[in-house]
Amino acid sequence: MTDTDAVVIGAGPVGLFQVFQLGLLGLRAHVIDVLPESGGQCAALYPDKPIYDVPGVPRCTGRELTRLLLTQAQPFLQPADSTSADAADRGAPSSPYANVHLGQQVSELARAEDGHWLVTSDRGQQWRARAVFVAAGAGAFVPRSLNLPGLQDAVNVHFHVPEAGALPWSGQHVVVVGGGDEALSAVLSLAEDSDPARRPARLTLLHRRDVFQAEPDLDAAVRALIAQGRVALCVGMPTEVHATDAVVQALTLLTPEEAAVRLALDHVLIRQGMSPKLGPLTSWGMALERKQVAVNTATFETSLPQVYAVGDINTYPGKKRLLLCGFHEATMAAHAASAALNPGSPQHLLYTTTSPLLRERLGVA
Amino acid sequence: MTDTDAVVIGAGPVGLFQVFQLGLLGLRAHVIDVLPESGGQCAALYPDKPIYDVPGVPRCTGRELTRLLLTQAQPFLQPADSTSADAADRGAPSSPYANVHLGQQVSELARAEDGHWLVTSDRGQQWRARAVFVAAGAGAFVPRSLNLPGLQDAVNVHFHVPEAGALPWSGQHVVVVGGGDEALSAVLSLAEDSDPARRPARLTLLHRRDVFQAEPDLDAAVRALIAQGRVALCVGMPTEVHATDAVVQALTLLTPEEAAVRLALDHVLIRQGMSPKLGPLTSWGMALERKQVAVNTATFETSLPQVYAVGDINTYPGKKRLLLCGFHEATMAAHAASAALNPGSPQHLLYTTTSPLLRERLGVA
Repeated sequence: MTDTDAVVIGAGPVGLFQVFQLGLLGLRAHVIDVLPESGGQCAALYPDKPIYDVPGVPRCTGRELTRLLLTQAQPFLQPADSTSADAADRGAPSSPYANVHLGQQVSELARAEDGHWLVTSDRGQQWRARAVFVAAGAGAFVPRSLNLPGLQDAVNVHFHVPEAGALPWSGQHVVVVGGGDEALSAVLSLAEDSDPARRPARLTLLHRRDVFQAEPDLDAAVRALIAQGRVALCVGMPTEVHATDAVVQALTLLTPEEAAVRLALDHVLIRQGMSPKLGPLTSWGMALERKQVAVNTATFETSLPQVYAVGDINTYPGKKRLLLCGFHEATMAAHAASAALNPGSPQHLLYTTTSPLLRERLGVA
Repeated sequence: MTDTDAVVIGAGPVGLFQVFQLGLLGLRAHVIDVLPESGGQCAALYPDKPIYDVPGVPRCTGRELTRLLLTQAQPFLQPADSTSADAADRGAPSSPYANVHLGQQVSELARAEDGHWLVTSDRGQQWRARAVFVAAGAGAFVPRSLNLPGLQDAVNVHFHVPEAGALPWSGQHVVVVGGGDEALSAVLSLAEDSDPARRPARLTLLHRRDVFQAEPDLDAAVRALIAQGRVALCVGMPTEVHATDAVVQALTLLTPEEAAVRLALDHVLIRQGMSPKLGPLTSWGMALERKQVAVNTATFETSLPQVYAVGDINTYPGKKRLLLCGFHEATMAAHAASAALNPGSPQHLLYTTTSPLLRERLGVA
């Protein structure tokens, strides 16, 4: 259990700016995100595409914006000390910051008798906070799976290419599912891995048709591997899973010629992109309107006390799902929380340009 | 009379971003500002001081932020063609953009019978617009004067150092009033002007005490001029103006020793900084609350139809006078105006990252 002033759910651009605004107001925050890195949709869906409408940033990519926001929040991010990492973080993707927790989905939000909020992740880690900021975008980005019984709990179904050193696939048959950039880049990295211990003995790319939707260079590179016989292309639609003791042995495929084919395998790597799911937050008791969290525009508080919702997840009259609106919402929510958590203390608006207190908090005093 | 979709009152950061957001929505805008350059308070009051809380911009000065916002709005700014400058702009500080009008204060806002707004400046220039965006910050920044009868209409009282070529002061006695950076830098530039035709015969710095509030280098440079006898320092408080036919002949000063001294002069240059005045906008009929313009947070519309107020000038529950909030307000107002001006046409939210239409408008198609 970690005690903190605030928990921010979502490490996308708005969640990162939320940490910055809370920090300026003297509130410490922990951020939790289901993705293995910071940046949310920006980093996951359009890392290299230009964005033109962030005020004062005439052009930046999703990855660049994430880097800028991390730099800005730096005074309020605690460098991770690998030797003392929280035991509950073990097994999760490593984070460079002790107060940014990656690869975990917040599963429960419950109110303690003293009014604090208890936040629990799907890895069992817990935080106790005075305020919670839901900056969950379109929901938790989770990998798109195949909608087939028997896949859900299988131990040899994967969604990420294993990191160096982990889970060697040498001598085994790996089937990569998908036809977009994510699937093709996984095929390429497995086929051309410089470490032979990681290279599968057999590599099959399984896609429902013989056309890919990928960058031309990537498409050409994978087509070359197929022509060289280093990767087998299997065209068909999976219709059945053959599993024993939670281990998938084979898939039945329906080919374009409507033949049923059995594909034996050792591992399945599903690379069909990510899709957002509102997931557990619909059960936390916040008032929703059309799958968005309803908020008050003076405070961005939800129907739960000291639980705020900012960015694409919220709704209010006139709502526009734009980054810059999320930045405003995070700022308003931080000020509202600061006032609610410090009743009776004056809430003068300070400016980073002139306030010695803010400059001290930023480390530029 | 210039016809346009929108007039933006104020070329500060929020006014410039307003032009950008209107441009993205296909609406052409003209911007009017009383200051001689773009950037509002940021450029006028803290051009070199760092700002840390613009989202995605970890640190920038007021001048840098202005430059970034001008770069961002560039696709919607029309380069000025000096040969065809609007006659009414003559005499105003030159603007690099045909749709940015500097050195003019909007004096009147009136509604025509057809519902268009007629906007008139104190230089008599007129615009007819379908929507008006008041981004006037704390009001129009005007130079601080001396509160003495007889100064107001005098023809030899100035607030700016004349531009090269204009109004030579050679052979005359100029009294500079003030003790801060603005007064001292005026003294320095007049005393060391490379053009002898501009150099006054006599230069006096008039300040209420023998201590300046200026940058150390500037302070030292002016002290050196005083020691060399090239500038006379006169310590005292002006108490009376002696004028004939709207020409100030002399000032009576009260010295620290409580003596009354008469200071004869040819020109007075008052350099005591700028202060904002709400000015004419209080008479346009917009509902005000405590000297701020009241707005609806779904649209940022004022009590006048298709007149919007954004940035520091407006008020609503929870209002924070922060740049990033102004950017949100400008964006919401642009969308509300676009919907009001194009009734019946669908208002899908488009993204600069993916929309071919927006990319074409931005010139990056």
